[in-house]
Parts: sequence; structure tokens; C-alpha cells
Amino acid sequence: MDEIGIGLVGAGVVGGGVVKVLGAQGRFFRDDLRLPVCLLRIADTNAARFSALPVPEGTVCSANADDILGDQRVKIVVELVGGTGFARTLVLEALRRGKHVVTANKKLVAEHGPELFAAAEAGGASVYFEAAVGGGIPLIKSLREGLIANDIESIKAIINGTCNYILTQMAARGKSFDAALLDAQRRGYAEADPTLDVSGGDSGHKVAIMASLAHGGYVPFASLPIEGITAITEEDITFARDLGYTIKLLGIINACADGRLDVRVHPAMLHADHILASVNDVFNAVWLRCDAAGTILLYGRGAGEMPTASAVVSDIVDCSRDIVAGAPRRVSMDYYGSERRIPLMPMDEIRTRYYLRFAVVDRPGVLAGITSAFGRHDISIASIVQKEGSAPDYVPVILLTHEACERNVNAAIAEIDGMDFVRGRTQLIRIEE
Amino acid sequence: MDEIGIGLVGAGVVGGGVVKVLGAQGRFFRDDLRLPVCLLRIADTNAARFSALPVPEGTVCSANADDILGDQRVKIVVELVGGTGFARTLVLEALRRGKHVVTANKKLVAEHGPELFAAAEAGGASVYFEAAVGGGIPLIKSLREGLIANDIESIKAIINGTCNYILTQMAARGKSFDAALLDAQRRGYAEADPTLDVSGGDSGHKVAIMASLAHGGYVPFASLPIEGITAITEEDITFARDLGYTIKLLGIINACADGRLDVRVHPAMLHADHILASVNDVFNAVWLRCDAAGTILLYGRGAGEMPTASAVVSDIVDCSRDIVAGAPRRVSMDYYGSERRIPLMPMDEIRTRYYLRFAVVDRPGVLAGITSAFGRHDISIASIVQKEGSAPDYVPVILLTHEACERNVNAAIAEIDGMDFVRGRTQLIRIEE
Repeated sequence: MDEIGIGLVGAGVVGGGVVKVLGAQGRFFRDDLRLPVCLLRIADTNAARFSALPVPEGTVCSANADDILGDQRVKIVVELVGGTGFARTLVLEALRRGKHVVTANKKLVAEHGPELFAAAEAGGASVYFEAAVGGGIPLIKSLREGLIANDIESIKAIINGTCNYILTQMAARGKSFDAALLDAQRRGYAEADPTLDVSGGDSGHKVAIMASLAHGGYVPFASLPIEGITAITEEDITFARDLGYTIKLLGIINACADGRLDVRVHPAMLHADHILASVNDVFNAVWLRCDAAGTILLYGRGAGEMPTASAVVSDIVDCSRDIVAGAPRRVSMDYYGSERRIPLMPMDEIRTRYYLRFAVVDRPGVLAGITSAFGRHDISIASIVQKEGSAPDYVPVILLTHEACERNVNAAIAEIDGMDFVRGRTQLIRIEE
Repeated sequence: MDEIGIGLVGAGVVGGGVVKVLGAQGRFFRDDLRLPVCLLRIADTNAARFSALPVPEGTVCSANADDILGDQRVKIVVELVGGTGFARTLVLEALRRGKHVVTANKKLVAEHGPELFAAAEAGGASVYFEAAVGGGIPLIKSLREGLIANDIESIKAIINGTCNYILTQMAARGKSFDAALLDAQRRGYAEADPTLDVSGGDSGHKVAIMASLAHGGYVPFASLPIEGITAITEEDITFARDLGYTIKLLGIINACADGRLDVRVHPAMLHADHILASVNDVFNAVWLRCDAAGTILLYGRGAGEMPTASAVVSDIVDCSRDIVAGAPRRVSMDYYGSERRIPLMPMDEIRTRYYLRFAVVDRPGVLAGITSAFGRHDISIASIVQKEGSAPDYVPVILLTHEACERNVNAAIAEIDGMDFVRGRTQLIRIEE
């Protein structure tokens, strides 16, 4: 059969990895898998990038992605530009022309999924996005195919390597958030502007995609409650450890009994025995509780040049298998692309356990004030301890609740924060069992 | 389109799970995924099994699998009989008639893979076997598709839940092998005849399949060195723990620099920090080191009614997607089915570290005798310690080597076993880093 032409847009870190992997595996794909994939074109506005890469002979490099869209031989457009501006236009136009799209763009899929999948359907093409979540971990394929026979009751995921590296450094080396972030930047694990990572936004994009896939309807990113890790202090990490817990930034997706989904991103305390508690450094892991398969954990490198390239190229192979088999839309995404929305549980309705840290003046009556407020809001206290403080004018009081409703906990905190002995911001970290 | 008829042969534990999962997910498959799967027929020689199952109205139950082979509407035959007698005949005949086959039969695939895949090619059909390795973990799909862009440099796998349960019980509760096995049998984790599990044979079948898939050639089960766990004593487990190690039954697949494969199954000591060391009870986990994706771990329940049914039904969906897309042989297995053999490294050439336990008389000169034998065979000793023994007439001497060649280690042991102070069997356990 004819060559399967590939056009790569974006020759940055991941794009470079894709060129390398296609070079290393090309013969295996052609000879053993009988997939005649061929990297026909690369487009990047920064021409300096081409010379740093092992671009195959005959591959045409240019500054203009239109060259790729206009080339009839290009069957698969690989979008590694990122963002939702040019990348969105490019992907929609490629699909309109019937070209398949492979993308690593979590923001684009999370924020514009239905638009993309509708365009794919109209164009008779497919969108593949394994690299959008979990880097080299075959996670999207597991959700769309491997675990398709399951109702996925719960997902807990560590899916931002930057945040996990920072929290690991804070816990293992006693670093402050700022020092750990600086370290992550020096090692190339964090961007110069780390906002999207540390704010939880990147995790939110990935959680929105996972929730949509796992539950067969569009879960819009904009509707998710998202908290980052910037408010986590060394004190919290130490206190958590003393209590037998580890703090991780988690993406959480729970199927509720009433058909709603509980989807959120926030730092959470995990018991040290939980398998996710030992996922450290830049590693990602997704823990799933499935009705038939039971507990599953998928673990690996969630970012970086080669792991992400591994996922992109697996999509290129998947797409090529579909092309060779004459089955261009084999795994339909219609149920995701449709406007079928799954109702979400508002954050103030969730029930979980809580770690609370109050900064209070060290004087009689404080503990009574705090505990009575919790009693008034129907919250049962599991333990409370006043620690010796490092600040001169206040001490920390650590309180763990039994399972309680978030609305009640917030009401109790608001009441306590109005009491005259409170000296600083009250910290709330949810405890996940 | 027409219904995709399914014929299920074998209504035992896993077959029952498949009936349940198809019942629970059938509407989702038909309405959302647009796959009109329909369980047309079930065959089992034990008719009592039918009445215990939620068999759908209209599904025909019979004692004779020929009814399934002879039904033109049956497009997918699900083989859950096991073994290589009737099951092999059934699968080959189904493929000859152009029916696709979904099987959980690791023995059949490991011992007769090339024959099956050749029959599939001849019949224009496909063989799916996700359930053959790792139960509910989407492992086969990850090897064939998700990680296809990688050279898989190393695999270490805990893939027999029975053995892992027994070793976990021995380590956590100080049970003897016999007591732990009895416990496993009581809980339904071990067969009445546990030989295939505890001998390592079951793990060997799974390792042979993984090695073939990961390296694109047939690795015959019969050629693999396999050791089980029956010789592991409570003493070994205690000594291992004192040294910071855990004993697990591992399947190991290493790509050697010279193009050969190092494939084997045996108990191994893993440092307590290794992520596989904390995989306990009946859980399975496969650790992979890939050239692009890096380290991956896939973890879950490797056996049991519902996890295995999850894998079988994911194959039914995969196969149905291929049928609906008109792409019945989308993922070719030709490279596995061919007679392309990958040379294996003989066991005596492997290099690793070793834990050795000698049973010796407690008298002067013994340690000198042991250590000088190791010196003569060019093996560097990392540590040696004589323990207090529980037996009246001998004491254990524990020796850890640095990396050494197995041939030399065996020669040193043979020499030492001939010395007059040796009183019992010498134990050898390989240490995996």
C-alpha cells in the first residue's frame, strides 16, 4: 500500500523525541508490523530546531504548517504546538480535510473535546491523544479499550510530575515550597512560569479528560474545583508524616450513587500504606477501582521528551493500523464528543475526612472554642493536638475529623476564623482513604 | 449492522464472570459504543452450571461446543475450557471456520502460539488473549499497542497470585510454606492440586507469552528455565528480611546486548525499596524498563472470576470493534506466529548476585573452606555470616555474592557440597537489583 505520510507540527522537546523514536523504530513498523509510516514533513517557526534533530533524508522541514495541511500524502498530522490558539485552528482544519490528528495537547482536548470530536466525525477522521495524560503510561488506551468492560467507580491520580517532585522534595529533604520549586526548575522538571503546574490546572485538564473517557460524557474543565499546592507548608508535611500520612496532589474522580460525578483536584493526605503514597519524584500513577477488574495501578513517567514521544508514536501506530485496516474511525469518540453532560457534585457536598491546622494564641479556652464550633456543625473530631510553634505569637493546633460534609467543615472554619484567638490562615487538607 | 454473535465455551468461574459482565455492560456496548454484541450460545458439559448463572433470555445453552462452531451467526468463540486438549482442537476449528477466538488460556497460547496464529491467518480471523496474562490488568494490550514504540529492555513480573499470596503469608505471618498453601487453598486462591502454580509453570506460560510479544518472535515455553517456590523456607524469608530483602517469585525477561534474550522464572530477592517488593497477597504487577517510556508498572488482580472476565470482555469489545470497522485482522500477530525464534541465553551464563545458605557443622575451618572455594571460582563475596541454628547438628551460613556468573556459582556450590562439613541442601536464591 501507499506510504502513510506523517506531518509533525512543533519540533520542540516532545517533537524532537518523536523524530528520534520514529527513526529508531521505523524499520520495525514497516517490516514487522507492515505499517509503511513515513515522516514526510516537519513544521516549526524556529528553524534552528531542525538542525538539532536527526531529521530523515527526504523529510521536508518548513516554517509553515500549511505545507503539511496542503500535502495530500500527509494522512496523520501530529500536533505538538500546545495551547488552544494556533493548535486548535490547525487541528480543526486538519480534521476538516480528513486528516487524522495525534496530539499531546491536554488543554485542547479538555477544553474543546466535543468540538474536536465533532470535527473528526464530520471529516471521517480520528483524534488520538494518548500523550495528553500520563506521558508514557498507556492510560488513555486502558480507559478506552483495556478497561472498557468496567464501571470505573473511583480514580485517584498523581498526574503532575512537577508537583509530585516538589512535594517529594519537601517531604524527603525538608525543603520549603520555594526551594523545591527552584530545584525542579533547575532540573528541567518545572517551567520558568510554573503556574499551570503548581496551581493544579494541568492536573485539572488531565482529570477532565479521564473523567470524560471513564464515564462516557463530556466533563468540562471549567466546571472542576481545582486547588494547587502553593499553600502547602513544610509544617503541614511534617505534621502529616507524624500522623502517618503523605501529602500528594491528587486528581479524584468518584462515581456517586445518584449518578453524579465527584471530580476534583487538590492536595490530599494519603495514609503511608496507600500505594500512591510511595509514588515519588516526577513519577505519575493512576489508581483505579473498577467493578470487575478490581484495583488497578498504572505507574510511569508522566512527562519528558522520550516518555511523551513513546505515547505519541503509539498513537501514530494505532492510527496507521486503522488506516491499513481501512477502519479510520474504529474507536468512536462520539459519546465523548456529544453534548451529553454528566452532572457534577458540588464541592460543598463532598464527604471526606479533614486535616485542619489553626494558628492560634496559646491561651486557655482556645481548644474549647474550636471543638465546640465543630460540635455545633455536627462534625465529629477524630483527634486534636496543640503543637509547639515556631512563630513567637501563635501555636499550631492540628485537628483531624471523622468523615464530614465539606459545607459543614467550611462553616465551622468560618466561625472559628472569626474568633479572637486566631492569628493566621487556617489550613484545610482533605484526607483520602 | 447484524448482531455480533458470541459463543461461550466453558461456563466455570471465569465463564460465569463473562456472562455477568456482558449482562451488566451490554446496553453500554450496544447504545454508546454501537457494538451489537449478543451472547447467542453457551456450551458446557456440566449443565448444572447454567442454572447458577444469569443467562440472558434467548441464549441457548447446550453440552456440545459443536453447536457453537456450527452456528453461522457466532462470530466470536470465547474459549474458557483451559488446557491444550479439547481447547486446542476447538480453537483451531473455530479459526479454520473464520470465527474469531477470545481465550484466557495461557498454556495454549504459550505452547501452541505459532500454530494458533497461523490458523488465524489462514482463516482470516484473529486470536485475542488479554486474559491469559495478568487477569484484569491491560497488559497484553499495553505490550502489543500502548508500548509498541519501545524497545523493552527488561521486564520483571509477579504474575502468579497463588505464589505471591503464599510468600506474603510466609513473610507477614511467619507461616511455613505448607501452612500458607493450605490457607491459600481455603480462600480459593490455590487449586486442590497447586502444582502448576507453585512449580512456577503458570508463571512460565505467562512469561513465554510476554517475551514473545515484547520481542517479536516465538519464545517457546519448553525452553525456559523455571523454578518454583516449594524450596523456600521460613528461614530464608527471615534471613532475607534481616538483610533488607523480600522474596518474590519473578518472571524475568532481559534483552541482552548480543541480541539474545535472558528469560527465566525463579524466586528472587528484591530490595525492600523496589516497587515490586510491596506487591502483596494475590496482586500481580509487571515492571517494565522501556527505552523511550522509561519505567512502567502495571498492577492489579491477576486472577479471579471478575478480573479475568474484565479482560475477556475487553477482548470481545476489541474484536467487535474490528468486526464493525471491517478490519478483522487489524493487529496482526504474524511476527509472533512465524517460526522466527529469538536465541535464549542459557541459565549458566547469567550474571547476577546470589544469596546462598549452607547447612554446616559448627566447627573451625568451615568458613575458610567455603570462602576459598568461592575464591577459586572467581566469585567475590559481599558478606558472609554464620547464624545460630535451630537444628541440633548444623548451623546456617548465609553468603551474599557480588555479581557473578551462574556457572561459577554452581561450580563453587558443587565443590562445597562435597566438603565433609556440609549437612543439608544448599539454598540458592538470586538477587535482582
